[in-house]
Amino acid sequence: MSDRDQSDGLDHLFAETVRETMDSSVYGAWRDIRDPEAVPLSFGFPYPDSFPNEELVSAAESLFDAEGDRALQYGGGEYADALPEVIADRARDRGIDCGTEEIHVTNGATNAIDTVCQTVLDPGDTVFVEAPTFMGALRLFRNYGVDIEGVDMDEAGLDIEALAADLAAREMAGEPLPKLLYTIPNFHNPTGVTLSAERRERLLELAVRYDFLVLEDDPYGQLRYNCAEPPPLRSLDETGRAIRVNTFSKTIAPGVRTGWIIAEPSFVEQFDRINAGGEPSFTRGLIARYAEDGRLDRAIEELTAGYRERRDRMMESLDERMPPETTWSEPDGGFFLWVEFPEGVDAEEMLPDAIDEGVAYLPGSFFYHEDGGTRNARLSFSHASPDSIDEGIAALATAVRAEAPTVEADD
Amino acid sequence: MSDRDQSDGLDHLFAETVRETMDSSVYGAWRDIRDPEAVPLSFGFPYPDSFPNEELVSAAESLFDAEGDRALQYGGGEYADALPEVIADRARDRGIDCGTEEIHVTNGATNAIDTVCQTVLDPGDTVFVEAPTFMGALRLFRNYGVDIEGVDMDEAGLDIEALAADLAAREMAGEPLPKLLYTIPNFHNPTGVTLSAERRERLLELAVRYDFLVLEDDPYGQLRYNCAEPPPLRSLDETGRAIRVNTFSKTIAPGVRTGWIIAEPSFVEQFDRINAGGEPSFTRGLIARYAEDGRLDRAIEELTAGYRERRDRMMESLDERMPPETTWSEPDGGFFLWVEFPEGVDAEEMLPDAIDEGVAYLPGSFFYHEDGGTRNARLSFSHASPDSIDEGIAALATAVRAEAPTVEADD
Repeated sequence: MSDRDQSDGLDHLFAETVRETMDSSVYGAWRDIRDPEAVPLSFGFPYPDSFPNEELVSAAESLFDAEGDRALQYGGGEYADALPEVIADRARDRGIDCGTEEIHVTNGATNAIDTVCQTVLDPGDTVFVEAPTFMGALRLFRNYGVDIEGVDMDEAGLDIEALAADLAAREMAGEPLPKLLYTIPNFHNPTGVTLSAERRERLLELAVRYDFLVLEDDPYGQLRYNCAEPPPLRSLDETGRAIRVNTFSKTIAPGVRTGWIIAEPSFVEQFDRINAGGEPSFTRGLIARYAEDGRLDRAIEELTAGYRERRDRMMESLDERMPPETTWSEPDGGFFLWVEFPEGVDAEEMLPDAIDEGVAYLPGSFFYHEDGGTRNARLSFSHASPDSIDEGIAALATAVRAEAPTVEADD
Repeated sequence: MSDRDQSDGLDHLFAETVRETMDSSVYGAWRDIRDPEAVPLSFGFPYPDSFPNEELVSAAESLFDAEGDRALQYGGGEYADALPEVIADRARDRGIDCGTEEIHVTNGATNAIDTVCQTVLDPGDTVFVEAPTFMGALRLFRNYGVDIEGVDMDEAGLDIEALAADLAAREMAGEPLPKLLYTIPNFHNPTGVTLSAERRERLLELAVRYDFLVLEDDPYGQLRYNCAEPPPLRSLDETGRAIRVNTFSKTIAPGVRTGWIIAEPSFVEQFDRINAGGEPSFTRGLIARYAEDGRLDRAIEELTAGYRERRDRMMESLDERMPPETTWSEPDGGFFLWVEFPEGVDAEEMLPDAIDEGVAYLPGSFFYHEDGGTRNARLSFSHASPDSIDEGIAALATAVRAEAPTVEADD
């Protein structure tokens, strides 16, 4: 049986949306561009010594001490039970007045977005996304056979007036209005920009006016380096149209793969129903135990300091080293900034040369559903050490100068 | 916002299948019947001292020692990477000649079944299930808006001739043929029976003849007390129509919530694509580390001894205590046996009285998509201690005698 795939003739047994999307690329296939010699400015990985290895072992020990056999049983013990309250409590600290009936815990943010998709999307629905946006979300939307439309962005996040005009034009023309708009309002992936408070209000008004849901994805919101927090969309929402997803991947570790959704109870009921029976109670208990005693808050403070230092170093290096025709966003938090290279540079074409020079990044085009971002790259300052970041930017500057000879001549 | 649900007017934004199924009950709601005073013969929970608490702490320590920051990073380290090979290796020991390209790791068996559903089911498809069957699988199928049809069972598993006759009649009448047949061939939940080797061969022939997939769910197959193992359906399959799901919930612990699918590579590609980006690498590394050095095999030996003792005690107690008109299955492994009470007993109606007497079980009707099982109950011998099992059966016998006066008079 393992010699060859016997199922060549079984494609007709796939679901319709799977047949329609089965030739799209597998998310993560581009990770092959990883080169161990190049400075990794490509992936949004937390930096290596940010992980609480010892604290998790000690949380596991104290979880087992406290709960005995409940910790590994179906449903878990009191710590796993308490995780929604831990999450609600932390959400209230950020201005979201919610109870546990508004919380659904998931196996990470990707699973959270997928759960929302499964609950609200039918094939043929229209989904609006920021252009560019997180490629993992694009991939999920594609799996549901929906039409994806990009909304342009500027330095204050998605262009709300362009959105309003598009919606009005669609309504006028009898064209499909969106069922869902997906946004990363804080320290956006890939651009690093933050949606202004005014635009948040306006976005929710449009959601009511045109009858769509707003999916707010906020993995980076607590990693904030020099700005006040604009109110979360969910905290501004008075009509139940904002659904918020989040994760512990950036504040504890990706490997614990635990996220959550905050939404109206009637939505949470459906999320609970759809995902019932799949709760990893050990991990959930472990996280609730770890979050006790302020450990998570102390960790976030340390992480914030570690990422701020990396962001500062990357901005300094860019200032110092890049040819003047290059521009970039100035993120107040998160993991990423977004570079625009001089005219004539194709970031995807340049990548192999850049890796040869000693730096890896993700080409901007990866973050667009359709064409876009050819002159852009996402640079992640989350993973490399500050000194490596400087080396990586130096290598990038060399690659850009080689790629754009006019720049080389001017410089 | 938390005062009341604001989204009453938003039901129209749910996906069509969600709207159609949203009023069905949430899986697990029946767990409210739990009573701390009653002997728990209801749930298929592993017994309390079966869990490897200390071994998992020590596996976590050695995982972190071996992998440092990789263990909690995206993708995980070499142990998480090795889990598909660990699974393939163990499958080969059971006669399934497979490579890692046939393995997709999931967040438990429920997630595995859900992944298969998402990949192959369209609304309106027909799914055949054993009647009775695992209620968690019924719930998942319902979420996909499919037509569910039950196939009768006897002491050798699903009634293959009844199935063949039904398929032939459907073909003749131009009625829908199944896209998928779901079976639990070993130590079936809830009946405890095992599908004979001959019927397995015949089932696969029917799958080819009538063009459907066979979903083989085998959570209990390694907990085998006094019989040789019939070949897994996946090992007999020569056309790629058998898809096998399994879990570590019964051999390590439910709380680690890790399962897998074995299927043709073309299916696994789609599972990988659908679930990409949601891998809990820490848990996966932990399991691979734990399974090393034969710890998992030793655990399975010990578990087998523990469960065999419980099964034996339950069978002895039933023999000794139940009124003669009561019959039950004689499982060679797994967690459950299936009782048929004397005529006149309604197991669902009797349950509150049985709980008052000091025993909890699950009424047989819970395991049917449509009507059925009113005189039946599933008794789980997995959770209670042998002495408690005996007390529970004594209480059950008392309840049955009170419920069926003719029995009381005869006895």
